[in-house]
Amino acid sequence: MRVAVVGATGAVGRELLLILQQRDFKLDDLRLLASERSSGMKIPFGGVELPVETLDEKRFDGVDLAFFCVEADVSKRFVPVALERGAFVIDKSSAFRLKPEVPLIVPEVNLDSIGKSRLVANPNCSTIILVVAVAPLLRKFGIRRIVVCTYQAASGAGSAAMSELKSQTEEVLKGGEPKPVVFPHPIAFNLFPHIDSFLENGYTKEEMKMVDETKKILGDKRILISSTCVRVPVFRAHSEAVHIELKQEASVEEVRAVLEKAEGVSLMDKVEENLYPTPLFASGKDKVFVGRIRRDLAFKNGIAMWVVSDQLRKGAVLNAIQIAERVFNKKKKQRGGK
Amino acid sequence: MRVAVVGATGAVGRELLLILQQRDFKLDDLRLLASERSSGMKIPFGGVELPVETLDEKRFDGVDLAFFCVEADVSKRFVPVALERGAFVIDKSSAFRLKPEVPLIVPEVNLDSIGKSRLVANPNCSTIILVVAVAPLLRKFGIRRIVVCTYQAASGAGSAAMSELKSQTEEVLKGGEPKPVVFPHPIAFNLFPHIDSFLENGYTKEEMKMVDETKKILGDKRILISSTCVRVPVFRAHSEAVHIELKQEASVEEVRAVLEKAEGVSLMDKVEENLYPTPLFASGKDKVFVGRIRRDLAFKNGIAMWVVSDQLRKGAVLNAIQIAERVFNKKKKQRGGK
Repeated sequence: MRVAVVGATGAVGRELLLILQQRDFKLDDLRLLASERSSGMKIPFGGVELPVETLDEKRFDGVDLAFFCVEADVSKRFVPVALERGAFVIDKSSAFRLKPEVPLIVPEVNLDSIGKSRLVANPNCSTIILVVAVAPLLRKFGIRRIVVCTYQAASGAGSAAMSELKSQTEEVLKGGEPKPVVFPHPIAFNLFPHIDSFLENGYTKEEMKMVDETKKILGDKRILISSTCVRVPVFRAHSEAVHIELKQEASVEEVRAVLEKAEGVSLMDKVEENLYPTPLFASGKDKVFVGRIRRDLAFKNGIAMWVVSDQLRKGAVLNAIQIAERVFNKKKKQRGGK
Repeated sequence: MRVAVVGATGAVGRELLLILQQRDFKLDDLRLLASERSSGMKIPFGGVELPVETLDEKRFDGVDLAFFCVEADVSKRFVPVALERGAFVIDKSSAFRLKPEVPLIVPEVNLDSIGKSRLVANPNCSTIILVVAVAPLLRKFGIRRIVVCTYQAASGAGSAAMSELKSQTEEVLKGGEPKPVVFPHPIAFNLFPHIDSFLENGYTKEEMKMVDETKKILGDKRILISSTCVRVPVFRAHSEAVHIELKQEASVEEVRAVLEKAEGVSLMDKVEENLYPTPLFASGKDKVFVGRIRRDLAFKNGIAMWVVSDQLRKGAVLNAIQIAERVFNKKKKQRGGK
């Protein structure tokens, strides 16, 4: 299989290349594409140094599978080109996520929704983490309402943001005043409820992605969702405080039993041993970790829980790679392969 | 007036002494009390160095007003002594907060509940911040439900915790592995949903304080409240994402108008200018800052908002001093003073 990675030099692109190697993803050819700025760079992959090529329309000729790890405007321009040249496209940007004809996929939750589409959108990181944890509860007990508050790492804003957290922290410890560049406010020893830009309704785009994408992936527009998305001074892995009103009553034990068996979920819930997930623990790991499961005291059939996952892995590229693995394994099986 | 400060050498005690000076609190005599460990220390106050005396029963003789800035077990032992010797006591600990006969006071909200009690309990920091912001909405529109998720600074765990955040951060930046001492997990570039100890129902004491104390201060046990309390790597000031179901419909503009006039609240809500409170901004300030006011999409009459305040000031000792100011001004007036 011939694979292209668009945006290979960014934080997300590099993580994708790392995970492709770790998972021993089968490929015959790998094409690394990026903006002209990165042209001439080389990136190590599987023991060799691969050149980074400048993204243009011809680069998609002969490509079977293209991962897009770029901003929405670049995806909007080049995804149609890749599709036209015959590639299967997995797009990490928000460009196509809410288009009714484009499947928005988290493999553990709604793989079947891909159907015959050759374009699959990869959801927003905070959304992926949320739906992996709540979809099993939706199936078993029904969900009426979700209130979710996030604690999102700098990694969600790219590698420059991670550097800004580091350099600002060093500056503050030396007694200096940090100057924000990537973020709207200082991030060192600080936090702010502002991820992506603000919309007319007072929510940020990030918050509305959690609302709209979650409804689309779960396939139920009647679920009521509200969210506050907050950037915190953590390098990697997003955390979410999730407060849920279920349709049917469920005990904490029943919820735990469902999540224990749920695909992609790892239960970490023994408060008597101080055991619950933290972003430091989840960094570099693949699962969505769930802990602090308890009755939610604000709702009749309420359940509260604490969900943490690495935003660069399951929250981003691991999800995209899992989509590719399942789609191409299935195609192989359909062709009579083993 | 003769004043005693119990726990004068801790983070909270020191902040109290600072604010007493800043507000030019009228006093004739100030007695600083602490455990034997601190005996012999001197603390600057109003241009002189005051000695720290070892806390024992006799120290309360002749004291008009005693601030208790110590843990619950010390308060349980010495508050009855101070009361017996005739002092008016403001206790910052959780020892008496939920006793039906002890008023739990936030001056902007329920000053009248003091009645003739000579013991007043000062609420938990996160609770104070929450009730200052929601009480005006309760009065005007009624409140059915609150879901609150906190982002709590290291200062809430005392000065050793603030030092731990600093030293661990330095260690991590040098490539080392932080070793937790005060906190159950590393706090440098990390966070955890664990403040105070865990209870039978799966909540932490901190979370249940927010639930129970808020109901007591607001004077309405039927309000449904649930909370997730999280420690974050910030030095000072707590933040709270507050999701509310009101009883009556209210527009964002109506809510803003109510909070604009509310005592103790400072509105900071212009997202088009990236204006909303952050802990860095609120540090060292006295108000409860409110921003990000918007419809809560999970509830019929829902309002979501973002509330930030300095945990050591309004969240703790400023509230205690405001109680004292109002009680003793009133007494003065009743005696015919001006």
